[in-house]
Amino acid sequence: MSRRSHRKRRDANQINQLPWQLLHNPFPPMEPLSPDQVESIIDAALNILERQGFRFLQDESVQILDDAGADTSNADGMVRLHRDLVTEQLALAPSQFVLRARNPARDLTIGGNNLVFASVGGPAFVSDLDKGRRPGNYAELCDYLRVIQSLNIIHQEGGGSFEPMDLPPETRHLDLYFAQLTLLDKNAQAYALGRERTADCLEMTRIAFGETDEEFSAQPAVLAIINTNSPMQLDIPMTEAVLELAAAKQVSCITPFTLAGSMSPATLAGTLAQQTAEVLAVVTLAQIVQPGAPVMYGAFASNVDMRSGAPALGTPEYTKMALASGQLARHLGLPFRSSNTTTSNCVDAQSAYESEMSLWGAVMGHTNLVNHAAGWLEGGLTASFEKLIVDAEMLQMMAETLRPILVNDDELALDAIAEVPPGGHHFGTVHTMARYETAFYAPIVSNRQNFEAWQESGSIDAASRANGIWKALLSTYDKPPIDAAIENELQSYVAKRKEEIVKSNESN
Amino acid sequence: MSRRSHRKRRDANQINQLPWQLLHNPFPPMEPLSPDQVESIIDAALNILERQGFRFLQDESVQILDDAGADTSNADGMVRLHRDLVTEQLALAPSQFVLRARNPARDLTIGGNNLVFASVGGPAFVSDLDKGRRPGNYAELCDYLRVIQSLNIIHQEGGGSFEPMDLPPETRHLDLYFAQLTLLDKNAQAYALGRERTADCLEMTRIAFGETDEEFSAQPAVLAIINTNSPMQLDIPMTEAVLELAAAKQVSCITPFTLAGSMSPATLAGTLAQQTAEVLAVVTLAQIVQPGAPVMYGAFASNVDMRSGAPALGTPEYTKMALASGQLARHLGLPFRSSNTTTSNCVDAQSAYESEMSLWGAVMGHTNLVNHAAGWLEGGLTASFEKLIVDAEMLQMMAETLRPILVNDDELALDAIAEVPPGGHHFGTVHTMARYETAFYAPIVSNRQNFEAWQESGSIDAASRANGIWKALLSTYDKPPIDAAIENELQSYVAKRKEEIVKSNESN
Repeated sequence: MSRRSHRKRRDANQINQLPWQLLHNPFPPMEPLSPDQVESIIDAALNILERQGFRFLQDESVQILDDAGADTSNADGMVRLHRDLVTEQLALAPSQFVLRARNPARDLTIGGNNLVFASVGGPAFVSDLDKGRRPGNYAELCDYLRVIQSLNIIHQEGGGSFEPMDLPPETRHLDLYFAQLTLLDKNAQAYALGRERTADCLEMTRIAFGETDEEFSAQPAVLAIINTNSPMQLDIPMTEAVLELAAAKQVSCITPFTLAGSMSPATLAGTLAQQTAEVLAVVTLAQIVQPGAPVMYGAFASNVDMRSGAPALGTPEYTKMALASGQLARHLGLPFRSSNTTTSNCVDAQSAYESEMSLWGAVMGHTNLVNHAAGWLEGGLTASFEKLIVDAEMLQMMAETLRPILVNDDELALDAIAEVPPGGHHFGTVHTMARYETAFYAPIVSNRQNFEAWQESGSIDAASRANGIWKALLSTYDKPPIDAAIENELQSYVAKRKEEIVKSNESN
Repeated sequence: MSRRSHRKRRDANQINQLPWQLLHNPFPPMEPLSPDQVESIIDAALNILERQGFRFLQDESVQILDDAGADTSNADGMVRLHRDLVTEQLALAPSQFVLRARNPARDLTIGGNNLVFASVGGPAFVSDLDKGRRPGNYAELCDYLRVIQSLNIIHQEGGGSFEPMDLPPETRHLDLYFAQLTLLDKNAQAYALGRERTADCLEMTRIAFGETDEEFSAQPAVLAIINTNSPMQLDIPMTEAVLELAAAKQVSCITPFTLAGSMSPATLAGTLAQQTAEVLAVVTLAQIVQPGAPVMYGAFASNVDMRSGAPALGTPEYTKMALASGQLARHLGLPFRSSNTTTSNCVDAQSAYESEMSLWGAVMGHTNLVNHAAGWLEGGLTASFEKLIVDAEMLQMMAETLRPILVNDDELALDAIAEVPPGGHHFGTVHTMARYETAFYAPIVSNRQNFEAWQESGSIDAASRANGIWKALLSTYDKPPIDAAIENELQSYVAKRKEEIVKSNESN
């Protein structure tokens, strides 16, 4: 194909997007809690840690906490944390930090009024309209990552969009990291299940950055989601990840999974108190390991459906707890993480309204990191190619909503208003023509055909249009530049570690 | 059918809903404009009215304005309104008023922090998944009104959900009013095209209320949407409606239709200035006719799609202008109306995310009346039975989001938290069991089945589930009680007026 015809093909598939941009939230946060209520909930959380305690299943962490003055001598196995210990350690955590990407132009700031969108992480399945919902493979995962790299509105990859089931589970994380670090130049989250997987992420990211250990640990570049096993427990793999991340001055985004009525009480206040207690328990451990280690207050508080016991997401309770969690995080001085969630099993109206409820709760709660911001379906069990696109549209719309309104003579346009007669139109005015290209947000997925034209072109709904869009993005994907020597070094690291892991498994 | 089996049928079709409730917005409004920017836009609007003027196509209104001191002697036919005249008249308009319903339990307050949801009004077509999109008939309109009456979250009917094309256009409004006043006991908007249709609404509503003229005009009971013909013009039928409504102390909800780039400049500030000028021109007329007549600041500012010239709705610009319009309305001391909009041609993800963008803009902009809050599709050309249900779900979720979070010992639930061991669950605690029925919002449409169960039950999306729900609501519809004498009087009025109108048409 000639260079010219190649360019033509690309133009035909070009998807109109907003440029890469860092987002800042100009609005004051929506605050459902009074200052007194915030104090009550935090006081309740500190009471829980002091009287009831928190269970760390990993022995080393119990010893670390014991050495720092926690009460670990309880018959019930709970580690009780005095409120002074908790608040002293909490005070060491930074309220804002830079999270670096392989491409420095994609570095992120986490905290303050900064707003970062991460793609979905962790599902078991992948789906698209062509092949339906299925266990995914590595080739499909790489395609999913290519679309994430292509979508400018996504700031960060979410730690593996779905499990590549064709790869052995014990070395799968190495292939994921290799794909993240070569197919994207954006920051990518770690797959932090246990010490080794976390250490591999740190080492491969360091290699990809071409840095020494010292250079690498000067500023964070790796963020991992640390889920507590609510209620009130942290398992061994997650604790190991916290220890590794904190030691390397990397980011633990501590996120209890509190579904009110199941993993926490069937009340919002109780769920918020327990969530805060769980976050603070893990923050305390991280700060003892490494004073000043970057940590985040993660909220994933929703409720169960009381008729079935099933998780309910994107609910009014979810939205309110996102807003309230933001208040609690700001009061504690921690950057705040929320999510974009839905329980819908397809990319229908429900998936969109639950996502919007989640997104407005996140954005108006002054979230710093919206996790699962694009791609999530089925309560997080599936990464959907079409939802990735529909979510990107919703995220772009949110970004545009946060852009300030300009008011000046040129924008007030009194001359243009005077120029057009009553009942006339502004289509052809000089003022309009000067703004023809850039005046308004141009959507990716949204359709504005009239009914007849839409029907004639096949009555295609938003999900089906999204199907065409991810394919177009994939067909025009550009692999971001990477030094060949670095890519080789990453390959060698993966090969060496696979060999080690296989050997170690054989000898076990 | 026996009474017992009748009750059984009803139970099977019973749809779980929130009870009828009046809504209050506890959050401060989201304000994209600085106080200076608000002043600039209002100053620009007053400049437009003073220097350029506004065209009233109806002669009587020009005379009324002339008598009040407006400059009507311009060769370009524009009525120029000095800013002092405008601000003096504006000061007479109430910032809040009660809008009565046939059933006093459904009276509404318009203004302040009160939030009212009205059903869609004005579409040319009706649609459902069974018969598709089509011109509607009167029987279908009556069914649509029955569903509106059945949905507790809808406070007000929107002035005719769609045109009943089987009825003659010149008397159609009488059949509409009869259906509104007998099938519903909620407040219903007028179909205010011209003097006669408006007068018929006032008279039939008075009859339905069983009141004298004097009793009826003591407090508003009729609200009509008054659309200007943007830019900067009010046509004869709309002007006549304003004159009738103001004289009877009923409500003109003055709503310019300003699509930036077409009916207004391709800028947000310019569109907001023009919108404000248009509202103020009509407010001035209404207050001159009847000092203290209830009026509203209506916003329908969006933008055109710059690639096609088509209207674009539920856009980021729409959301921001809804928020900004709320600021302008509050500054002017007028109750504020916004809308729930989408350009989608089917009940898909786009229809939901555009509606959510509109609703969040409306609610966070402290809208007092969300017009078209339920049922709108295709940029307002179609009233959809399924969208009515999906919107009702979104409105209920919004209502629940506005409900304050309680924080007290019982809600903080420290005993329940202490009772459940780490990694255990709260399903069976006394605290959870006591809240089993009422703890969380129970949805109408949202599905929380896991993927396998959902697939086994037919992979039904939200729109298809909504299809079953409106049918269930229709099958359990209860006609609200009405005095037989009043219903007869309404029937006689309709018959008499039809005869008059037919005769008058014959003699023309």
